[in-house]
Amino acid sequence: MGAGDQFLISGQEVAKHNSRESCWIIVHGGSKIILKYAGKDATQEYEPIHPPDAITKNLAPEKHLGPVDPNTVQKVEVVISDKDKARQERMSGRPPLDEILNLHDFEAIGKLVMPEKAWAYYSSAADDEITNRENHLAYHRVWFRPRVLRDVSQVDWSTTILGQKSSMPLYITATALGKLGHPDGELNLTRAAAKHGVIQMIPTLSSCSFDELVDAAQPGQVQFLQLYVQRDRKITQQLVQHAEKRGIKGLFITVDAPQLGRREKDMRMKFEDEDPSEMSRSGTSNIDRSQGAARAISSFIDPSLNWGDLDWFKSITRMPLILKGVQCWEDALEAYDRGLAGVVLSNHGGRQLDFAPSGIEVLVEVVKKLRKKRGVKFPNDKFQLFVDGGVRRATDVLKAIALGATAVGVGRPFLYAFSAYGQDGVEKALRILHDEFEMNMRLIGAKTIQDVVPSMVDASNLKSHVVAVPGDRLYNSNYESLQHARLRDLKAKL
Amino acid sequence: MGAGDQFLISGQEVAKHNSRESCWIIVHGGSKIILKYAGKDATQEYEPIHPPDAITKNLAPEKHLGPVDPNTVQKVEVVISDKDKARQERMSGRPPLDEILNLHDFEAIGKLVMPEKAWAYYSSAADDEITNRENHLAYHRVWFRPRVLRDVSQVDWSTTILGQKSSMPLYITATALGKLGHPDGELNLTRAAAKHGVIQMIPTLSSCSFDELVDAAQPGQVQFLQLYVQRDRKITQQLVQHAEKRGIKGLFITVDAPQLGRREKDMRMKFEDEDPSEMSRSGTSNIDRSQGAARAISSFIDPSLNWGDLDWFKSITRMPLILKGVQCWEDALEAYDRGLAGVVLSNHGGRQLDFAPSGIEVLVEVVKKLRKKRGVKFPNDKFQLFVDGGVRRATDVLKAIALGATAVGVGRPFLYAFSAYGQDGVEKALRILHDEFEMNMRLIGAKTIQDVVPSMVDASNLKSHVVAVPGDRLYNSNYESLQHARLRDLKAKL
Amino acid sequence: MGAGDQFLISGQEVAKHNSRESCWIIVHGGSKIILKYAGKDATQEYEPIHPPDAITKNLAPEKHLGPVDPNTVQKVEVVISDKDKARQERMSGRPPLDEILNLHDFEAIGKLVMPEKAWAYYSSAADDEITNRENHLAYHRVWFRPRVLRDVSQVDWSTTILGQKSSMPLYITATALGKLGHPDGELNLTRAAAKHGVIQMIPTLSSCSFDELVDAAQPGQVQFLQLYVQRDRKITQQLVQHAEKRGIKGLFITVDAPQLGRREKDMRMKFEDEDPSEMSRSGTSNIDRSQGAARAISSFIDPSLNWGDLDWFKSITRMPLILKGVQCWEDALEAYDRGLAGVVLSNHGGRQLDFAPSGIEVLVEVVKKLRKKRGVKFPNDKFQLFVDGGVRRATDVLKAIALGATAVGVGRPFLYAFSAYGQDGVEKALRILHDEFEMNMRLIGAKTIQDVVPSMVDASNLKSHVVAVPGDRLYNSNYESLQHARLRDLKAKL
Amino acid sequence: MGAGDQFLISGQEVAKHNSRESCWIIVHGGSKIILKYAGKDATQEYEPIHPPDAITKNLAPEKHLGPVDPNTVQKVEVVISDKDKARQERMSGRPPLDEILNLHDFEAIGKLVMPEKAWAYYSSAADDEITNRENHLAYHRVWFRPRVLRDVSQVDWSTTILGQKSSMPLYITATALGKLGHPDGELNLTRAAAKHGVIQMIPTLSSCSFDELVDAAQPGQVQFLQLYVQRDRKITQQLVQHAEKRGIKGLFITVDAPQLGRREKDMRMKFEDEDPSEMSRSGTSNIDRSQGAARAISSFIDPSLNWGDLDWFKSITRMPLILKGVQCWEDALEAYDRGLAGVVLSNHGGRQLDFAPSGIEVLVEVVKKLRKKRGVKFPNDKFQLFVDGGVRRATDVLKAIALGATAVGVGRPFLYAFSAYGQDGVEKALRILHDEFEMNMRLIGAKTIQDVVPSMVDASNLKSHVVAVPGDRLYNSNYESLQHARLRDLKAKL
Repeated sequence: MGAGDQFLISGQEVAKHNSRESCWIIVHGGSKIILKYAGKDATQEYEPIHPPDAITKNLAPEKHLGPVDPNTVQKVEVVISDKDKARQERMSGRPPLDEILNLHDFEAIGKLVMPEKAWAYYSSAADDEITNRENHLAYHRVWFRPRVLRDVSQVDWSTTILGQKSSMPLYITATALGKLGHPDGELNLTRAAAKHGVIQMIPTLSSCSFDELVDAAQPGQVQFLQLYVQRDRKITQQLVQHAEKRGIKGLFITVDAPQLGRREKDMRMKFEDEDPSEMSRSGTSNIDRSQGAARAISSFIDPSLNWGDLDWFKSITRMPLILKGVQCWEDALEAYDRGLAGVVLSNHGGRQLDFAPSGIEVLVEVVKKLRKKRGVKFPNDKFQLFVDGGVRRATDVLKAIALGATAVGVGRPFLYAFSAYGQDGVEKALRILHDEFEMNMRLIGAKTIQDVVPSMVDASNLKSHVVAVPGDRLYNSNYESLQHARLRDLKAKL
Repeated sequence: MGAGDQFLISGQEVAKHNSRESCWIIVHGGSKIILKYAGKDATQEYEPIHPPDAITKNLAPEKHLGPVDPNTVQKVEVVISDKDKARQERMSGRPPLDEILNLHDFEAIGKLVMPEKAWAYYSSAADDEITNRENHLAYHRVWFRPRVLRDVSQVDWSTTILGQKSSMPLYITATALGKLGHPDGELNLTRAAAKHGVIQMIPTLSSCSFDELVDAAQPGQVQFLQLYVQRDRKITQQLVQHAEKRGIKGLFITVDAPQLGRREKDMRMKFEDEDPSEMSRSGTSNIDRSQGAARAISSFIDPSLNWGDLDWFKSITRMPLILKGVQCWEDALEAYDRGLAGVVLSNHGGRQLDFAPSGIEVLVEVVKKLRKKRGVKFPNDKFQLFVDGGVRRATDVLKAIALGATAVGVGRPFLYAFSAYGQDGVEKALRILHDEFEMNMRLIGAKTIQDVVPSMVDASNLKSHVVAVPGDRLYNSNYESLQHARLRDLKAKL
Repeated sequence: MGAGDQFLISGQEVAKHNSRESCWIIVHGGSKIILKYAGKDATQEYEPIHPPDAITKNLAPEKHLGPVDPNTVQKVEVVISDKDKARQERMSGRPPLDEILNLHDFEAIGKLVMPEKAWAYYSSAADDEITNRENHLAYHRVWFRPRVLRDVSQVDWSTTILGQKSSMPLYITATALGKLGHPDGELNLTRAAAKHGVIQMIPTLSSCSFDELVDAAQPGQVQFLQLYVQRDRKITQQLVQHAEKRGIKGLFITVDAPQLGRREKDMRMKFEDEDPSEMSRSGTSNIDRSQGAARAISSFIDPSLNWGDLDWFKSITRMPLILKGVQCWEDALEAYDRGLAGVVLSNHGGRQLDFAPSGIEVLVEVVKKLRKKRGVKFPNDKFQLFVDGGVRRATDVLKAIALGATAVGVGRPFLYAFSAYGQDGVEKALRILHDEFEMNMRLIGAKTIQDVVPSMVDASNLKSHVVAVPGDRLYNSNYESLQHARLRDLKAKL
Repeated sequence: MGAGDQFLISGQEVAKHNSRESCWIIVHGGSKIILKYAGKDATQEYEPIHPPDAITKNLAPEKHLGPVDPNTVQKVEVVISDKDKARQERMSGRPPLDEILNLHDFEAIGKLVMPEKAWAYYSSAADDEITNRENHLAYHRVWFRPRVLRDVSQVDWSTTILGQKSSMPLYITATALGKLGHPDGELNLTRAAAKHGVIQMIPTLSSCSFDELVDAAQPGQVQFLQLYVQRDRKITQQLVQHAEKRGIKGLFITVDAPQLGRREKDMRMKFEDEDPSEMSRSGTSNIDRSQGAARAISSFIDPSLNWGDLDWFKSITRMPLILKGVQCWEDALEAYDRGLAGVVLSNHGGRQLDFAPSGIEVLVEVVKKLRKKRGVKFPNDKFQLFVDGGVRRATDVLKAIALGATAVGVGRPFLYAFSAYGQDGVEKALRILHDEFEMNMRLIGAKTIQDVVPSMVDASNLKSHVVAVPGDRLYNSNYESLQHARLRDLKAKL
């Protein structure tokens, strides 16, 4: 069937083509999942992991069969399972937004009300998830040195990022597959960002299409683009130049993912989800199952990307170029020497290499070494440092700013916010952050972001990676804990 | 209705004025709570968070309507709930005081017998309560270097604080809203302090009025005053000068609270407390609820307070001026250079900025830097260093003394003591501390407080802020713990 | 009734004297307990905490009334409580000794089969028991640097202590009130020590009398004496000179206990033990109850003991004098300069000053400073260093030896051993230690104790007193732990 | 009965010889177990802990009685216990291999499906198993410093070990008694190693005979031999020379086991396993029971082995000689100076000396000191460094390679793999490792093993052996944890 044929295809016709030899689907994915849904309407499964323009952009036009008559389509039977019902009940039991006091709360609620698949994909990380948790905990090794008796009646935590105004020193970083958590996907972020004056970084792997997200922006709203460089550089070039045309203000090239990480929690979920009866095969079966959402979407990334490619990028766009995923000072120095606009010190939210250091820890070495080797001071307008990963509080952000970052990327908390409450959740999250910034700017004694300086933090413990000597189980179990005084009644009952 | 009218208002009359437009209450609070109780007698809700003279001092006289005929008043119906009954039962089950062995015990009992609201307000702290707990744990990083074979048959742990005698090197620091925990509020502290020769610091936000607490003092009993500086400096001036007139021996100006902290445990309690049926609104409701006790009482504090204001304080009073809430050596040095009488190295019990360092940790840097930069030695009569936060044992106090503090402030333990046992509890707490001082002075080999010197402690680990590498959950759950030998019977049963 | 009257007193006569004014008991204790048992036979309660010669030695002869006719005595009714029965059942369920694999096992069994009072007294320690546990854990910060390819077919871990042979580099240190745990008390230790060639240090506060313990020794068996110096120096002089006469080879003067510590676990046990109905008094009662066994036995100790007294000791005895309880290098140096035979670096098993450092940690600073200041090398025959506290394995001992100790004192493990199994338990404990020494001498590559040298250990972490930053409870409870692969059945059931 | 008699012996005849004086068994073990099975067929108990040629090699030929008529033998009655049945049920519930995501999973499944005796023997370690766990945890103190923007489209993690090709930088290290876990024992390893191009180190104490394992090798497959040196050097010489003849490419002489360690978990299992009724003896019985599998097999090892013996080894074989079990730089230097081919920095999987350091920690000091003292750089072809112990991830291996190791030995994970799934399990384990190597080579930015250099890791925390200050139990139990926002329903139910 040639391209351009514009007659209505019947669902029955589609349904016949359900074999490897002739496989029609109404929307499509990888070959395996295609076969599973061959001959049916797979929109519901397809949508969260493909932007709407995925077919038009990536499939040769001659393979498009044309529109289908919706009345004739055999739907994948959507049975609302007990699990789903329970989830919907939990959804109706969400606390009102004013009971949400901090970003942690969105995660606590989100994990109960979003589909398991979304939770597994969003929350999972590489290997033993050591780096994932380290990202957050590293902030707990940095302590404040607050100043008092400064007039903090007016405090201002707005800043500029790559020359663009931001109401706070953070941006919404790129995270994939937003529709897994909420039908509006990343649009929730675009809309909330507009209302609160923060910048959104659009992900290559958004569920919504790039154009949808740009279209949804308010006049003057700033957006960045995160880029996975593809094996087919032409597609990448088109994407980059299209982005520039659409007004994107910064291009964040991901460099920490030549191959997308194994995220075992995500992979494990797949097995848990299956019908147990399907598993009654021999323990030595070698059936290839899904590798989780991450693997399903990563094969197009080009692992050969290298420093030499950067000139090409400069040749195709005038957007500021930032490397996302730098993890040591040597690479930050290289980026500086090559005249890039900055680097994001990031380990991809702990989703790639386990035991990669946290961005905040790398920040300290980068600031130190670039000062020493090139005399650069931070924060620096010409070469900006960003960190992401593990941020949950405005205090986390302020620590990074004090140590030399221009701004901090926040990702998962906003995913959890919209998975639980949609756009309202993201807005509430931003309001909480504004509140925390106001409070904490006052409490550290900083009137503006420029006042948040290195002497305001003690980062001397940041490089300490302590693993305690294993516990003496026999000694410890012999030890009888001290007890408090107790109420008489309790005593009598015991 | 003009000021000065002195006829009896009827309750029925009051009850009519229950709208935003015309709101009469019999005593009053913030505008929101006022509307809740509009037209009724709110004394029971009002009393713990306002001293009895709050109206006469802070409300323009022309807004006072005059006395109300008590017989005609519509009371807020006080129903003794099951929760209250359970609490009263627990109250009757308190162990006798001689079973209270240490300050921890008061907290253990107090938390069971005090109203939930009191527990939430007293125990809560900022953000993730990291600093709150760090305050206590920091003392565990300081170890003794005890001396032996000194004649310790007579040991004396009394000292002088700002020139005033104290039976031990600690004082009762300012804590707000004492009536939440006990109907006599801070009077419990005044009376017990008198009996045991310790100094009480009266809080600006006491439930009892300043004058009540001064009136309750015994002849010669020493009291200090903690001061929140108000936007309206005239009120502050009146308060300060009145305090000096009433014999207050030291003015502790709070500098760590330009805005009162968000204490989420306190805020959360509000929601837990409400009728669940009221929450059946949409998850996205934006209804503004109470922000906890802290926020309810903080709007009057002046966030513009700065170093320049200190001359004014010197001009209005001759009381010794101490800054309460200094958190780095730079600000301690500034206070020293400006000729103040001392500083309290404090983070407000962890209730303001999370990740502020503990007082004991700041103490070490202050002593070191002021010695280096100004040649000052500590303890020092002209410029005294105090710390507060986290103290539970006399050993904690002795560590601070060894490191250069003149005295240590103790707050929450006394709140828990009177919430559980009234004045008797506070007295018992002081007796326990006396016992601990006697014992531990002997055991470290110090006859007097002057013998408690830096070489008696090892504080080399104090600056260590360790956060362990996240656990390897898979490895750890595979590890099978060693078991002890077991009794035969237990084995048979298993 | 005068002294010397030697007629038989009737129990009925005794029973009449049961008041404060005229109080006869058949054996006696402190005044309070005396009143409790006034007029009855208190032997059972009295025996564990007083050696048999306590009356003849400490009570003026004119207060002895004479022998009582046993047939006429009103016994304290001994009711075997359900608790006791349960304990006796547990006793009969003890595993055979060959299931006891290490010293921890004795504690595990002992705590189940000994009277609660014994467990409370033996296991308790000062304040929050931080030092008590630190004593053991400090050894876990010292790691071996083992040597290989040495001929270890014959290994010999015997040594000499104060010139006396010992089959291993440890001695049984002094612990009080042995009859609380076993009717034969410290005799269990004397007899087992004889069989295994180790030295016992006899405690001042033994349940058995000093002479009983010396009489029980085998010919040539070496014993030391631990001494609490009494206010009445004549009694102390008699005791010391009597000990020398009886062949005691070393006098260990306790210097870390001018006052015996508060051990709250022990104190708490008293309340737990009482009839709950007795507690129905007002929460504010001030009734003085028992302060635990420690306080009951400590008032005779002289807190004025000081360095000046040491000459007097030299004048009354030629036994080697060792200070037990030194806790910093300054005092070890003083002891060295005064020509003593050695010091025990000890904190009294964590029972005195909480946050006193472990002996093993003090050892390192003593060795370093005495080498630096006096050129002394360790181990040293003229001035021997001992440590005690927290030892559970031969490896612990070997670490101390490598760091310069001559020998290590072990206390509680032997108490637990005889409380569970009498003399057989102590012997088994010693056999286990012999086995461990043989094994571990081979594995570290040491043929003799002289080969156990500083380079065989890495003690670089010993001074590290880490307290982790308090946990982020919200973050941690959101984190969902990774799961292993699971069996299909388990999955189905969940 | 003389040797060489080749008639069929009847089972009845064997059965008569069941006393100490005349003990015939059909296969044999130590004298104690021999008596237990005297007169019966002990093959089932015997096989896992003896290779099939144990009799022909180690028992004088004149003691062989000859073949037995199988029909006449009294079998040890094999009753399938409830425990066994439960285990077999669990075996049938194993998840299919594609649900096994990492090496931890094999342990999780293996521990449920292997015989308890196997689990006890495989998983147990010395004393408190501190070193055993430290081996794994030490890797968690080493963090990566990953490089980006290198072309990693092709990554190659193959290497050479002692001049032999290996598909990855690890080998299967020697572990004893493979048939405890699976009837094919170490053959599972040989076969899987062949398929995946890795080297197997054959253990002296394999359940399969040396020749069986060599016979099972594919043409060109490389095998090493681990050697326990016997008291009878002739046996050792025969074994070594036979191995060389059979093509073994490296001789790893174990030097950390002059005596096999006490593994209490293994010993404890013996008691747990016995009929409880047999234990009804007095608590003080001294019956000698089994000491666990380790002791049963260790008496032949020569504890006199020393550096002087190495020349003899050079005189009897030309295989590369490597010392297995070196634990400090001094001994590594000695091995280097004596011209050996390398050392394995190992503590025998934590099974020998507790508190021996991890191999990875020793690696760092060896590399540093040998560079300093002899100018050697690592990795080094002439003198190769290996580490083993605690490896579970390819990242662990890459850390050791970066720090200078040539390869890493992995043992227990493969035991768990074949105990759970036989040869398929080992193959899956190797596939997982290949996957992890590919991923992580890319993510650290290394194209080949040569690119894995010291600057790619941060090992600055490796020597940190932290033991936290013991917890403040009273403080901690008073602390009330923060709570998340909760669903309305949950709240109502609570």
